[in-house]
Amino acid sequence: MINIAVIGAGRMGQIYCHNVAKNEHCKLVYVVSRTLESASKLAHKYQANACTEVSVAINNEAIDAIIIASPTPTHLDIVTMAAKAGKAVFCEKPIDLEIHRVDQCLQTLAQYPIPFMLGFNRRFDPQISQLRQAVLAGDVGDLHMLLLTSRDPCPPPVNYLQSSGGYFIDSTVHDIDLMCWISQELPLEVMATGSCLVDPKIGELGDIDTSMTMMLMPSGAICHVNNSRRSVYGFDQRIEAFGSKGMLQTQNQHQHSLLSYSSDQTKMASPLEYFFLERYEQSYRIIIDEFIEAVQNKTSIECNQFDGRNALAIALACHRSVKERKAIAPVYC
Amino acid sequence: MINIAVIGAGRMGQIYCHNVAKNEHCKLVYVVSRTLESASKLAHKYQANACTEVSVAINNEAIDAIIIASPTPTHLDIVTMAAKAGKAVFCEKPIDLEIHRVDQCLQTLAQYPIPFMLGFNRRFDPQISQLRQAVLAGDVGDLHMLLLTSRDPCPPPVNYLQSSGGYFIDSTVHDIDLMCWISQELPLEVMATGSCLVDPKIGELGDIDTSMTMMLMPSGAICHVNNSRRSVYGFDQRIEAFGSKGMLQTQNQHQHSLLSYSSDQTKMASPLEYFFLERYEQSYRIIIDEFIEAVQNKTSIECNQFDGRNALAIALACHRSVKERKAIAPVYC
Amino acid sequence: MINIAVIGAGRMGQIYCHNVAKNEHCKLVYVVSRTLESASKLAHKYQANACTEVSVAINNEAIDAIIIASPTPTHLDIVTMAAKAGKAVFCEKPIDLEIHRVDQCLQTLAQYPIPFMLGFNRRFDPQISQLRQAVLAGDVGDLHMLLLTSRDPCPPPVNYLQSSGGYFIDSTVHDIDLMCWISQELPLEVMATGSCLVDPKIGELGDIDTSMTMMLMPSGAICHVNNSRRSVYGFDQRIEAFGSKGMLQTQNQHQHSLLSYSSDQTKMASPLEYFFLERYEQSYRIIIDEFIEAVQNKTSIECNQFDGRNALAIALACHRSVKERKAIAPVYC
Amino acid sequence: MINIAVIGAGRMGQIYCHNVAKNEHCKLVYVVSRTLESASKLAHKYQANACTEVSVAINNEAIDAIIIASPTPTHLDIVTMAAKAGKAVFCEKPIDLEIHRVDQCLQTLAQYPIPFMLGFNRRFDPQISQLRQAVLAGDVGDLHMLLLTSRDPCPPPVNYLQSSGGYFIDSTVHDIDLMCWISQELPLEVMATGSCLVDPKIGELGDIDTSMTMMLMPSGAICHVNNSRRSVYGFDQRIEAFGSKGMLQTQNQHQHSLLSYSSDQTKMASPLEYFFLERYEQSYRIIIDEFIEAVQNKTSIECNQFDGRNALAIALACHRSVKERKAIAPVYC
Repeated sequence: MINIAVIGAGRMGQIYCHNVAKNEHCKLVYVVSRTLESASKLAHKYQANACTEVSVAINNEAIDAIIIASPTPTHLDIVTMAAKAGKAVFCEKPIDLEIHRVDQCLQTLAQYPIPFMLGFNRRFDPQISQLRQAVLAGDVGDLHMLLLTSRDPCPPPVNYLQSSGGYFIDSTVHDIDLMCWISQELPLEVMATGSCLVDPKIGELGDIDTSMTMMLMPSGAICHVNNSRRSVYGFDQRIEAFGSKGMLQTQNQHQHSLLSYSSDQTKMASPLEYFFLERYEQSYRIIIDEFIEAVQNKTSIECNQFDGRNALAIALACHRSVKERKAIAPVYC
Repeated sequence: MINIAVIGAGRMGQIYCHNVAKNEHCKLVYVVSRTLESASKLAHKYQANACTEVSVAINNEAIDAIIIASPTPTHLDIVTMAAKAGKAVFCEKPIDLEIHRVDQCLQTLAQYPIPFMLGFNRRFDPQISQLRQAVLAGDVGDLHMLLLTSRDPCPPPVNYLQSSGGYFIDSTVHDIDLMCWISQELPLEVMATGSCLVDPKIGELGDIDTSMTMMLMPSGAICHVNNSRRSVYGFDQRIEAFGSKGMLQTQNQHQHSLLSYSSDQTKMASPLEYFFLERYEQSYRIIIDEFIEAVQNKTSIECNQFDGRNALAIALACHRSVKERKAIAPVYC
Repeated sequence: MINIAVIGAGRMGQIYCHNVAKNEHCKLVYVVSRTLESASKLAHKYQANACTEVSVAINNEAIDAIIIASPTPTHLDIVTMAAKAGKAVFCEKPIDLEIHRVDQCLQTLAQYPIPFMLGFNRRFDPQISQLRQAVLAGDVGDLHMLLLTSRDPCPPPVNYLQSSGGYFIDSTVHDIDLMCWISQELPLEVMATGSCLVDPKIGELGDIDTSMTMMLMPSGAICHVNNSRRSVYGFDQRIEAFGSKGMLQTQNQHQHSLLSYSSDQTKMASPLEYFFLERYEQSYRIIIDEFIEAVQNKTSIECNQFDGRNALAIALACHRSVKERKAIAPVYC
Repeated sequence: MINIAVIGAGRMGQIYCHNVAKNEHCKLVYVVSRTLESASKLAHKYQANACTEVSVAINNEAIDAIIIASPTPTHLDIVTMAAKAGKAVFCEKPIDLEIHRVDQCLQTLAQYPIPFMLGFNRRFDPQISQLRQAVLAGDVGDLHMLLLTSRDPCPPPVNYLQSSGGYFIDSTVHDIDLMCWISQELPLEVMATGSCLVDPKIGELGDIDTSMTMMLMPSGAICHVNNSRRSVYGFDQRIEAFGSKGMLQTQNQHQHSLLSYSSDQTKMASPLEYFFLERYEQSYRIIIDEFIEAVQNKTSIECNQFDGRNALAIALACHRSVKERKAIAPVYC
């Protein structure tokens, strides 16, 4: 039985507590939050202890693993503290918005080699992992193109965007990770372009809300990502893998499906899953199950700090490409 | 808060306990089963009391409502006992396999008018109820045809079939209820035909495993049901409503969907939901929620003993039609 | 080179002339019609001769084959005349509406064994013949159910219906032929029911416009046909074959397909092919090609007078079943 | 009646002759080819005159319009000759591979203002033009993204590729024209990347066979094109328009569609149309009909030399972008 402390009682903290409670091989012992009220409310629901001090939870001998769901700027310190305490860590992405701070994290983890998993949950979506398995099994032959559509139903609040690091680092980074994970390559260079079309307030922050990204892989394969902060018909999440032997496509998942044929049209009453909490609900459960299993069996973790470091490097290259209007080679660790 | 006793700790009893536990407005107080062991195991999971005597649970003053999930032959006695005790009853379908015993139940319920709901869960499937709402809203104009495909992934054990009442009464009765509920009519007459094609052991029992049913409604609308005990590609559940202004179709629900295009074919890796517990999972939750709400608010219940009585009469007419090879007019109450 | 006379210059005559002209192995020599004007107009288009006397065309030595597209009551006499003249005959369905006259035709053809093909064109639709080939190849294992949806966009003129023989004989007969052809069986008995829901004028003629048919095959397989004279969303033509190893479905063909996703719905702007001339255009060409090839190579013809005789017997049984409200065993030759 | 001379008797010449013959308002008078044999063969089929001298056909007084389907390097001279003779011209794309020669053509046409249409046939595909109409009608609101997938079933012969001008100029130019036509904008700048993954012989020519292109429009809309010379599952032609109010998608057209469900998978036996002659068959007919109509009614022609000039400028910018690995602003006329 793995004893867990969840740091953070916000939206993501609640999801992780919920999934920890569902897993039979672990027990939620602590919920840590800045205010005792929010910690207690969440802890009570799962018969865990509430606490406002991260160090208390981390240094408690009974605790085996820490799940970090607190604001991004706190990640590095908590990872460092947990690493020094020898606790396994699951860290919500990103490690940090600054590459030099991510590198610092890598150094810490090199010095204190704890089990460390980064929360790229979409890898654990059954449909996406099935597509990747098929690509690795050679179903499309040599991979020639990988195309990813990722459009949110609506933008986050403007004050969230102010400290988000920009569209590529906040959002495209998920797609970048999937691209590298599916293709098993890191891009030689990226070209990106973007616009502010959804909300002028986003533009006033110097950010964009509509973008496209192109990545050239060492094998010659070419990847494409398109992102929008506002898709009125719902959360649009599709991947297409094209290669020498064929093509694979994931489909958007509909809540249910009723077809209606009339004299003038055919309609499908089939709303898409609303947003990432609904669409990727399964993946949030599976990623925690995999983390717990890896901690319990002391097996290596595939979704880790290096993936986070590389995805950030690529996202930064995208960001630069929009400004400098040329291909940028990401700097890998 | 409605206090509940669930009678029966088998597969259906477990589902109802699970859904009672999820509902915030009720509390599982008793689990009753013939053996204390199975009652205790299930009761323990939900911190309820175990008991082997139905009367103990029913006559407990704290209990407001009884959920009957015990074997069919016990339904009538339990309903009678609960009605006399003035408890609300949710009864898994059917009330009984014999029409005269169902009529006895109707008499009892007339004498002791308790809130009574019958477990025709499919009505509460969001997709099916959405189709019905669209039909009632006039989306297809006047209803001309209603077609229902209902094919199980595999037959039940032969010993279950021995006391099941025959294919129409055991299985088609679900489809019959949906037909009447969607069309808001009761058939004038039915014509049915059937074969034993799946397993000769079913034929040795005098039963069939493949059937088609046709029903002529008072409005002139014609309904069709096709049933099979064995659909190798999964649980096939589709409804089509055709009328003067168009057509509506429900679609089978897939667990996920990955399209694969190669030089010789297009494949869809998209298994259907396996069987009724998976496909109609939502409906089992919703029907309990609706029952609890009706008990709490003392509102009338639409899915009741009369629906069960009529569906059985129609199923018996189907059964006779196969034997007598002619149209049979069901005898309604 | 096969020299052809087409009898009849109406809608079907025009289609056959068009397809004769497209076939490289035959030449349209005569177009025969009651009025010289209509014969000339059509003949001129294909540089053929016009004529008002059937006997002139049939007895012309240069003519190898006759295509009969004149009104149904004339078919028997023309077939007889052509058979006696030793000419190959392609006859638009039906041979006749009266079974005793069809039997007379069978006798004539037994006495004068000419190549004879009946115009059950739907067998030659690439999609339907592909489904049949898959069924024969065992793709669905043993056939358990065959379901056919056939709904017209609009009813024919009432004066046409007056002499059409009734809905089953005029229209369902196509579906009946497909059922027998795909299953390779003739039904033991049929049960049918029907209503007049589309146009009361059809009911005043004693006819129906909405029907369902059920057929029990010697193997135990069960067939279903549903027909409507009015499907507002277009010509609806679907076949489903269900068996021990799986299911096959043909899909309606759309003229083109544009999907539209908005905040409230998903629409498909994809009108169905309007009616049989559009939907089965290919089949009308292919059936003529097959006829010409059979005449040229003196090979046997599979779609012949016996198929017409059997389909009529089954349609008549459907007609009786509606009246007598019981299963009727068709009388085969 | 418009009298036509078709220059060129190759694959495209044959298609244009076929479609001229189908149009009731024009007459094919001349087929011109370098060898009398090929000109005669084609001319004979349509009862036209064969000829080896372009000038003879152009300067024949009876000729109203010239359709140019000869090799690209000959286009400029023929257009010039026809313009000076005051004949209407339909010119297969491209006008020329060299922008200075296209500019020369523009000058000539400015001096001799004849009706001139360029063969961007895909604009006339019913599905694509329906999508554009919906975009112009505001169905997706403001256009934010336009994505075009265009993948050929197999590469052309290497010797054709040697003088094709490179992948963007030979092939992507079609997609570029559609992008500009649908969005009604010309890109501010393009970014493109490409690889040789299909056939190393293509790489030896210095060409690519797999590419992606990104275009930033003045409105901020972003366009994407992906191209491959080899799609094993057939000619893949899809367009997606995404905007503030929704999304529109064209679908690939299937020859027919048979769904097959078995215990392990769902298959769709539905081959795509093989290549452009099959997929865009309708568009080749419609573009000629529109040309004839414009000549007859002396109306202005929308698909003209300026569209060809701009698409070439953009394709050249794509070509440069791959080499220089930066965004390139096309130089418009």
